[in-house]
Amino acid sequence: MAEVQLLGARGSPFVQRVQYALKLKGIEYTFIDENIKNKSELLLKYNPVYKKVPVLVHNGKPLSESLVIIEYIDETWENYPILPQQAYEKALARFWSKFIDDKIWPAIAKAAWTVNKEEREKGNEEVLQALQFLENELKNKFFGGENIGIVDIAASFIAFWLPTLEEAIGLKFLSGGKFPKLQKWSQEFINHPIVKEILPPREGLSAYFKTRYAALSSAK
Amino acid sequence: MAEVQLLGARGSPFVQRVQYALKLKGIEYTFIDENIKNKSELLLKYNPVYKKVPVLVHNGKPLSESLVIIEYIDETWENYPILPQQAYEKALARFWSKFIDDKIWPAIAKAAWTVNKEEREKGNEEVLQALQFLENELKNKFFGGENIGIVDIAASFIAFWLPTLEEAIGLKFLSGGKFPKLQKWSQEFINHPIVKEILPPREGLSAYFKTRYAALSSAK
Repeated sequence: MAEVQLLGARGSPFVQRVQYALKLKGIEYTFIDENIKNKSELLLKYNPVYKKVPVLVHNGKPLSESLVIIEYIDETWENYPILPQQAYEKALARFWSKFIDDKIWPAIAKAAWTVNKEEREKGNEEVLQALQFLENELKNKFFGGENIGIVDIAASFIAFWLPTLEEAIGLKFLSGGKFPKLQKWSQEFINHPIVKEILPPREGLSAYFKTRYAALSSAK
Repeated sequence: MAEVQLLGARGSPFVQRVQYALKLKGIEYTFIDENIKNKSELLLKYNPVYKKVPVLVHNGKPLSESLVIIEYIDETWENYPILPQQAYEKALARFWSKFIDDKIWPAIAKAAWTVNKEEREKGNEEVLQALQFLENELKNKFFGGENIGIVDIAASFIAFWLPTLEEAIGLKFLSGGKFPKLQKWSQEFINHPIVKEILPPREGLSAYFKTRYAALSSAK
């Protein structure tokens, strides 16, 4: 077995983050597909705190939390730097990656999956505000400059998962025309050769969103 | 003016985190006391995303988010390492620091300040569960070994702020006797000479908690 294993689940944008980092570095790994409805002993042993994927196992030592894993990968394999080299730029990259997890992801969940209409509208506003901050931060082809960096990886669900969700359930964020730089970035990102290798088929994801939304609508 | 400024507010455990890091490294800084009810132009300019303290300004460049700031300080001033040197131990330190922010802080807020009784009880359970994970992790005098490290700094509100809160409003977490290692650590931490310099008087904090709790009780 390879010295690197990734406990994951197909379609999880958090698992995909780790896959991007591993692939960008050219690290060989074994993908262990977890059934999240019937969690393996291995997952429970390796991530007793959250019992969630992704878990990276390197030489038998487990790590969880996608952004923590990515920093570990970047420090352990030095080719293709994923974080900036200078302390200040590195700190900013951490700040924006954390912002994406703390602000954008929960706001999208609120806008898409909350039954209460007022809450959904509040979520909608929060997504738009947060995306505007990100739009203002994008100064180059990628957040990482000419190459994909940690902020691009953290934001990867905005490039693929979000547009698919918007189309499936009728939301307007990236597709609303307010964020031309993010829209262009989204195309650059999903057309990157490494990213293309990892992205799941759009149809499957779209069908999943539609089913989930239908179940939600019947509860409204 | 010193090359390092800290926009803070007295009594904020998140600001104290940054103060511990600066003091441990022996870095001179100017403390700029913010009135959080009337935020300064400087704060709004330097932290437009969250409009919150702490903000560290180093050579005119601002950074926010306490854990991001601490990693920056550790990378910029090399004496007294705050994070472990090895990549795996460093990743674990990041994992536990994040766990404290994501799990323990919100659970305490739920247990202490939620009006709904069931929610408060749920919060209570969550705090106990999360503290148990932390108790199991504590293998030495400090989480950082013989010296205070980033996990100790992240957990600092558990050492001082939490026992004060427990006493003020009648909660039983550290004081409940279930976490002997954390209780001992809490004493070690608050008696550390650097920490003692920074901690506010316990009475003021206790009075604040009692007032807040009385306002909440009248809403119950």
